[in-house]
Amino acid sequence: HPPEGKHDTRSQVFADLSPEEYTRVRDYLLSVEELDLTSDALAKPSQNFLFLIDLSLPKKQHALSYLDADGAKPVREATAVVFGGARGLVSEYAVGPLPHPTYHRDVTVERYGTEIPITARTVTLGEYVLLFKCIEDQVFSKLGLLLKESFDVDKDKQLNAFEQMPRGVKSGDRLTWVSYFRSMSGMYIHPVGLEVLIDHKSLNASLWTVERLLYNGQYFDSAEELRTRYEAGDIRKIVYVETSDYGSLKPRRRALQVGPQQHYAEGRRFSVHSNQVLYLDWSFAFGLSAVTGMRVFDVRFKGERIAYELSVQEAMSVYGSVTPGLALTKFLDSSIGVGRFAHELTRGVDCPYTATYVTTHRYIDVAAPTRFLNSICVFEHNMGQPLRRHFSDFFSNSYGGLVNSALVFRTITAIGNYDYMWDFIFYQNGAVEAKVHATGYMSTSYLVDGNEKYGHQVAPKVLGNIHTHFVNFKVDLDVLGVKNVFQTKDMAYVNVSMPWNPEHHAMIPQLVEQQLNTEQEAALRYGTKTPRYLHIASQELNRWGHQRSYRLQVTTFAGDPLPESQPEERSMSWARYKVAITRHKDREQTSSSLYSQNNIWSPAVDFSKYIQDNESIDNEDLVAWVTTGFLHIPHAEDVPNTVTVGNGGGVILRPHNYFDEDPSVHSPDAVYIQPG
Amino acid sequence: HPPEGKHDTRSQVFADLSPEEYTRVRDYLLSVEELDLTSDALAKPSQNFLFLIDLSLPKKQHALSYLDADGAKPVREATAVVFGGARGLVSEYAVGPLPHPTYHRDVTVERYGTEIPITARTVTLGEYVLLFKCIEDQVFSKLGLLLKESFDVDKDKQLNAFEQMPRGVKSGDRLTWVSYFRSMSGMYIHPVGLEVLIDHKSLNASLWTVERLLYNGQYFDSAEELRTRYEAGDIRKIVYVETSDYGSLKPRRRALQVGPQQHYAEGRRFSVHSNQVLYLDWSFAFGLSAVTGMRVFDVRFKGERIAYELSVQEAMSVYGSVTPGLALTKFLDSSIGVGRFAHELTRGVDCPYTATYVTTHRYIDVAAPTRFLNSICVFEHNMGQPLRRHFSDFFSNSYGGLVNSALVFRTITAIGNYDYMWDFIFYQNGAVEAKVHATGYMSTSYLVDGNEKYGHQVAPKVLGNIHTHFVNFKVDLDVLGVKNVFQTKDMAYVNVSMPWNPEHHAMIPQLVEQQLNTEQEAALRYGTKTPRYLHIASQELNRWGHQRSYRLQVTTFAGDPLPESQPEERSMSWARYKVAITRHKDREQTSSSLYSQNNIWSPAVDFSKYIQDNESIDNEDLVAWVTTGFLHIPHAEDVPNTVTVGNGGGVILRPHNYFDEDPSVHSPDAVYIQPG
Ligand SMILES: [Ca+2]
Ligand SMILES: [Ca+2]
Ligand SMILES: [Ca+2]
Ligand SMILES: [Ca+2]
Ligand SMILES: [Cu+2]
Ligand SMILES: [Cu+2]
Repeated sequence: HPPEGKHDTRSQVFADLSPEEYTRVRDYLLSVEELDLTSDALAKPSQNFLFLIDLSLPKKQHALSYLDADGAKPVREATAVVFGGARGLVSEYAVGPLPHPTYHRDVTVERYGTEIPITARTVTLGEYVLLFKCIEDQVFSKLGLLLKESFDVDKDKQLNAFEQMPRGVKSGDRLTWVSYFRSMSGMYIHPVGLEVLIDHKSLNASLWTVERLLYNGQYFDSAEELRTRYEAGDIRKIVYVETSDYGSLKPRRRALQVGPQQHYAEGRRFSVHSNQVLYLDWSFAFGLSAVTGMRVFDVRFKGERIAYELSVQEAMSVYGSVTPGLALTKFLDSSIGVGRFAHELTRGVDCPYTATYVTTHRYIDVAAPTRFLNSICVFEHNMGQPLRRHFSDFFSNSYGGLVNSALVFRTITAIGNYDYMWDFIFYQNGAVEAKVHATGYMSTSYLVDGNEKYGHQVAPKVLGNIHTHFVNFKVDLDVLGVKNVFQTKDMAYVNVSMPWNPEHHAMIPQLVEQQLNTEQEAALRYGTKTPRYLHIASQELNRWGHQRSYRLQVTTFAGDPLPESQPEERSMSWARYKVAITRHKDREQTSSSLYSQNNIWSPAVDFSKYIQDNESIDNEDLVAWVTTGFLHIPHAEDVPNTVTVGNGGGVILRPHNYFDEDPSVHSPDAVYIQPG
Repeated sequence: HPPEGKHDTRSQVFADLSPEEYTRVRDYLLSVEELDLTSDALAKPSQNFLFLIDLSLPKKQHALSYLDADGAKPVREATAVVFGGARGLVSEYAVGPLPHPTYHRDVTVERYGTEIPITARTVTLGEYVLLFKCIEDQVFSKLGLLLKESFDVDKDKQLNAFEQMPRGVKSGDRLTWVSYFRSMSGMYIHPVGLEVLIDHKSLNASLWTVERLLYNGQYFDSAEELRTRYEAGDIRKIVYVETSDYGSLKPRRRALQVGPQQHYAEGRRFSVHSNQVLYLDWSFAFGLSAVTGMRVFDVRFKGERIAYELSVQEAMSVYGSVTPGLALTKFLDSSIGVGRFAHELTRGVDCPYTATYVTTHRYIDVAAPTRFLNSICVFEHNMGQPLRRHFSDFFSNSYGGLVNSALVFRTITAIGNYDYMWDFIFYQNGAVEAKVHATGYMSTSYLVDGNEKYGHQVAPKVLGNIHTHFVNFKVDLDVLGVKNVFQTKDMAYVNVSMPWNPEHHAMIPQLVEQQLNTEQEAALRYGTKTPRYLHIASQELNRWGHQRSYRLQVTTFAGDPLPESQPEERSMSWARYKVAITRHKDREQTSSSLYSQNNIWSPAVDFSKYIQDNESIDNEDLVAWVTTGFLHIPHAEDVPNTVTVGNGGGVILRPHNYFDEDPSVHSPDAVYIQPG
């Protein structure tokens, strides 16, 4: 039984670029002489490096006209990001038309309202090579004895680096604390107690300088000073001690019999073709931006569009430490690339054996497009519980129920230490869930005096540092078209007299409904009491006279967002709000940007500006920006890896008076039992 | 491969009574002449009716001595509840020793500190028969024409009844509004607009009186008044209109191919014997109280007890309506019996086909013990995601992960309209989750003027009434023995100067730890800011010097608890607190009671009294009482049934510095991949 729907090639307006398209865009741009580009993966900061090629999303209005009204197919364009070392600016170009580009247009100012300084760029592989060489020359080559005695480092055994971000304390800085870790499995939980501050702002690497060093909790202005004092013996030394391989993920026990597995006894009930998925009553297009990650478009249930876009926007963490490697650290992962690290998924662990795996291609910080085999998985999963059921033995005897089988669309992005598991789940009752879980290695620091108040010790001389996880999803629901309102519902106890006994008063819960009409009213801050039910609603009514709506139900265990007094906060201002509603704009495509991490004080995108103009959201195309996350106080059980259980959050988009009854009554899986 | 552990018959101190034991307790009590009991299932209120026989839990100290210290096996006793109509009191007896009882002891005052008035008793089947007959005689027999014209009721077609609770407005009342529904599938969502108030306080049913009637939103003092005015035509009439069978759960579509199913390719990895479950590193005993429902005891991981008891305590709902049938309604399900309604589970819907099903027996409101076939299910489930994983391609290339297969222990209790799904889930990282989801039919009322502010219309003339779901779990963690403390952890931003750059200040998150030392400090109210991490901790330290603890992570979408100004609130005072910690007492076995619903104003158990004495909880045996739930604003998609997705809550008990590392590293399911 194939799915009843048919695949539709129009989904491809949302498709990521093919390897051929990436190559053609690259070759076209390289052919434009005045751009003077290089695509050398080890390009120097002073060169104009073609860093990224990614799909440029069509304007929503054009896409809708094409999808819904037989409008023209939107011109397909790529976004190309050039780190223009020679010009001192980062530039974004729209390149088109695909698949055979003939033009390019600098869209930087159009998109961000400002130029992007070159210091805002992501650190490339080319720059990393120079950075490590600089530290080798200016530090490691001068500290042979210390490195050997403290860390057992020699020619055959090196330390591994992990960096602090942001890189400095003010716009224009490119001043990075690099922390060192043992070269072992899970290096992130093997800090050695050595950190180096390097100023790599200059586009000429020969001008880079080591500014400070931290060794065993003690600061030094130069490698020479550290060496001299180390050799003089007037500092507290670290004496190398072998540690157990506690970060290893190797099995420590023989396998027993295999655990439970799912199977499709009668075949798949979903179909993946090109970038479109069909599943029972559902259909959607999908893509995977190297920058922001997984996203779906044109999500339809029973043929009706529920959401235009549902996408990952950003994963952010704020750390605490006394050591510089994590003290000021605020990771904004989309500046490195969330989708960039969607690697191959392991069958039977990351997704079931029977999942359908999709191979993706990306072009980021490379010389040619890269293939990521089986980096998306799609599967139907039996959740092991009923979606609904009722057993009756009062007055009548019967049983009716429906097992909860749902479609899961997943990527897992291993962004350095952490692995984020991203799930969009499509249920048979018309609900969609977006979830994120964190696993992988936490970031740690070497345990020195004063660091106890920033976390818990988790291994010998290792502190697991306190941090927050904040994740932002873009939820562009279109409830019966783009013109929607934002409604809230909640309860309130009201003292009322009983109609049949008017002297008797009692506090009775009543329904409290409100429509919030401006962006600022609809920006629901963490830490404030917000209504329990949040709805994107149409003005159209269901059969019972209620506005048809989808409800956003957010599950979050988030910590406190960074205080707004901090200059870095502007780059993460989306995290203030559990839910914020904006009027849709093509120019407000993302809540964060590729340039936020390295120019965190003056970001290309400051989400709070989307709502600063306080536009009306009454009968407009609305976008909900949902922030979830959790406070992570590390503990011994985070070694070797943080587990997914309890470490996540998400949002369920649920029909609420959208239908006239639960659409799962039409599921082919319904079961009914009656006596006789 | 059988589980590595061995079953232990000592678990049976927690086992529910066998059919033979129930029968022997009944027969012993019936043989005691001075008790003058009847076990007739249709006993009259004026008789002394043996309502309930249930396991009497051993004193914890005795059980621990038996389990841990080769102490004597605790004497096995039953609790018998007698509705002593002849005496005017409810009595609880301890009956023992099982399996051959020879003594009984009235323990009512010992357990509740007070006598239990007969009006506090649950309405029995015998009383229902009398109630319906009374209404037939005093109402239905007098309203033939109205019933036919308004509801198409005649000899062959009756209405079905559903009652409001509590029964009245003050202690001693037994004054019940009975609402009427069409006799159709899912009667609960087919209200007809007729409600009857009956005073059935007298133990002599011939003295019961109908006090008021509600018909189409209009009140009448008697059936005669209603008939006279109906026939005179001076009231707003309801004219019968056939309605569609929208409450039906019958499939509306042919089955397609079967959905995904789980299987154990190499057999079960868990074992259920008697009332004990073994699963990988886990073991626990289980039981199912007719009153409170599902519970597990002596929960051990790797042989160490984590929890002495984890149990369902109460499911409560507060409704809002303008109609009396739901206006004052506050359901306290354990007064009817939560476990009582743990019926047979449907394979493939309620639990997977491959689950192990356990048959249970109960004695409640019957003449002989009842068998409930396959009413508990136990299964290992592949959650379709990794429990942990990391992919590395920086510095080294490797992948390690572990699929999240966990053991689910489940009952589903269909308490009238609602079906609550109760899950205890045992994970390979040492975490246990207690979850509840609601499904089944919501309670509704006939749509009359003024009712719109109490919910949403969901069907023709049907209002889905706003209500809260609150559920209470008892979590008696014993972390390395019974002497524990209650700790909280959270984050706070602190303005600190950077050690390497003292002029630079920044707000850095720090860890804030606190020990709460008294019951009142540790009573964490809903609606207040509570610390994000809650721990039951030992004074013993793990290898890294931190107190070994289990964390309680609560997921809840609860509405507002009933204001304390309301006299009914004392029966549900546990719902004030998201988490409350008490010192363990055998006398404080439950947070609610069988007698709370019908004497809601003066309940046998008022949880808030457990903490009123504000005892020290520093190094004591602690019990956490966890309240979760959700606000339910009904919507069209609640027809026919509320879905489980998004409609639930729970608590995860997670090791936090309990171990020295994540114990799942020892799982036999671990997978590791490295190049060549
Ligand atoms: Ca705006
Ligand atoms: Ca929209
Ligand atoms: Ca107390
Ligand atoms: Ca305890
Ligand atoms: Cu974390
Ligand atoms: Cu409900």
